[in-house]
Amino acid sequence: MGGDFAPQAPVAGALLALAELPAPLELQLVGATAVIESQIAALLAGELSSLAHVRDRLIIVEAPDVIAMTDKPAVALRSRPNSSMVVGIKRVADGLADAFISAGNTGAQMAASTFHLKLNAGLTRPAIGTIFPTANQPVLVLDSGANVDCSPQELVQFARIGATYAQDLLGRSSPSIGLLSIGEEAEKGNAVVKEAHQLLLQSGLNFIGNVEGRDLATGICDRGPIDVVVCDGFVGNVVLKFYEALAPTLIGMVADQAQLDRGTLRRALHQLDADEYGGAPLLGVNGVSIISHGKSSPRAIKNAIRVAQRAYDSDMTAHIRRRLAESVPSHEAPTGSAA
Amino acid sequence: MGGDFAPQAPVAGALLALAELPAPLELQLVGATAVIESQIAALLAGELSSLAHVRDRLIIVEAPDVIAMTDKPAVALRSRPNSSMVVGIKRVADGLADAFISAGNTGAQMAASTFHLKLNAGLTRPAIGTIFPTANQPVLVLDSGANVDCSPQELVQFARIGATYAQDLLGRSSPSIGLLSIGEEAEKGNAVVKEAHQLLLQSGLNFIGNVEGRDLATGICDRGPIDVVVCDGFVGNVVLKFYEALAPTLIGMVADQAQLDRGTLRRALHQLDADEYGGAPLLGVNGVSIISHGKSSPRAIKNAIRVAQRAYDSDMTAHIRRRLAESVPSHEAPTGSAA
Repeated sequence: MGGDFAPQAPVAGALLALAELPAPLELQLVGATAVIESQIAALLAGELSSLAHVRDRLIIVEAPDVIAMTDKPAVALRSRPNSSMVVGIKRVADGLADAFISAGNTGAQMAASTFHLKLNAGLTRPAIGTIFPTANQPVLVLDSGANVDCSPQELVQFARIGATYAQDLLGRSSPSIGLLSIGEEAEKGNAVVKEAHQLLLQSGLNFIGNVEGRDLATGICDRGPIDVVVCDGFVGNVVLKFYEALAPTLIGMVADQAQLDRGTLRRALHQLDADEYGGAPLLGVNGVSIISHGKSSPRAIKNAIRVAQRAYDSDMTAHIRRRLAESVPSHEAPTGSAA
Repeated sequence: MGGDFAPQAPVAGALLALAELPAPLELQLVGATAVIESQIAALLAGELSSLAHVRDRLIIVEAPDVIAMTDKPAVALRSRPNSSMVVGIKRVADGLADAFISAGNTGAQMAASTFHLKLNAGLTRPAIGTIFPTANQPVLVLDSGANVDCSPQELVQFARIGATYAQDLLGRSSPSIGLLSIGEEAEKGNAVVKEAHQLLLQSGLNFIGNVEGRDLATGICDRGPIDVVVCDGFVGNVVLKFYEALAPTLIGMVADQAQLDRGTLRRALHQLDADEYGGAPLLGVNGVSIISHGKSSPRAIKNAIRVAQRAYDSDMTAHIRRRLAESVPSHEAPTGSAA
């Protein structure tokens, strides 16, 4: 029920996903049953009429209430226990679903995921990990919007969970971690970044030092290819939204001035299309919770479902939990093992 | 003598600028006289042989020392009083030059400009104002790299100096000011941004609220066109460098996938070329000090000289000083006038 184009986009996205993903995978649509049923009927009678064969793998889970995009997360979480957001995330917590996907209120999804799925030991906050297309290989950027004011320790936590994600979902061995800053040297950056740099040097991760805005565009720096870029959610979100909006801007500039066909350009720049990845996992909670853009199209939802499936199949959640447990300093670890 | 391609790029850029800008404008090249003279001779004997007629408008000012790109600003300022950077800026302070341009060490240029030209009353720091091309009109972004950790009050100072710059150099009447954040609502953003939002509401400026990364790409938001975007120098610098590196990245993507000619694309995206603006003024000091990229080409230097000329001709420095004096709260103003 969440997102700017609900329920049409999530329901259509679910049908498209089922057409691509083989059984026994099933999708549960959480929300007002009557609304969802009539939306399914409308789509199957209309533009998605060829997908009637996947209908029996769609299950409707009743949730009468909705958290609005403008609701304050903490308030919404307490006051709307029967919202599609809370009911859906609780199904993952209760083992009734393997993953949750939403294009709804991001803050509420983060709060509900943290509360019901629980944070991994060793973390103080979860992070959103977003894939940035670059001139070379895609780069994982985190946090891209969950946490605006971060401590140096939290940036190190993001590096740890990002490394595991890059390994499991992007297939990178010993992922290289860059710290987003405004110069390569360790002494460049704001106070938090400078302290995080020192902590990352001692983290045991494959830390390649500071990376700059330009390296986010190329995916590579003097020290080699970059797999993960760590930053606070304020900078990460500004850069992400800037990037998402640039593709149409640039297509317009090029089309106008070089008299080129917009369709050709759009296809050439399809990697920059935010719908291509569809959703970003909330990393650091005990369960798969995929955050999609409020403006997600059916194609974006379909791709977000694929991200959820890959996250589940690769056992990403357990890997992150295990890696964090290994890295918790001995004085914090419950069993007092040598760190 | 500063920048990655000195002395070749600054000397060539000066010759190119003189060819475009009519007398009585003269340029002073500050540095090691013998090195500069042989560089001029080499260029006039070679690729710029058609520019011999501008040679008599080039004056050499001896400065035997150089501040390296990696020198620490505060140390360099004290230990190298005879560097081209310090000698050049002092000429502006002493009324022997109308503007200073450098592609050298940015931190040292900021420190020397602040020390010798002096900050305007009402400011605690200067800011770098950079022009971002957008899908619509260009937008002034400040600070784009001078100050990494800023107070809410400093963001308001940037808004005041940015408004004057947008009026004088971009010709915008009553410039609209946006505060860079991660959501439109006043309560979105990090702690500093949230407090700055409240201060901007009371500033008397044409404050249009928070703007997001996407608005930086389009130059427009729900509340209309954006003239000035205010942010701290960490975020501003990350986004600036990301943008600068994207043009070649995107040209590559489009050329490879749509089989288009790179030259055509480069011309179509010429607005994204950092050389097009050439340099950004350090705003808030009593004199024109233009900061160019370390990798500036001769064309970038030439365009930076044009930026300097426009800044001087429009009397930007005096306007900023006056506007700040008007806006200083009465209890801070030296004469106790009603604010």
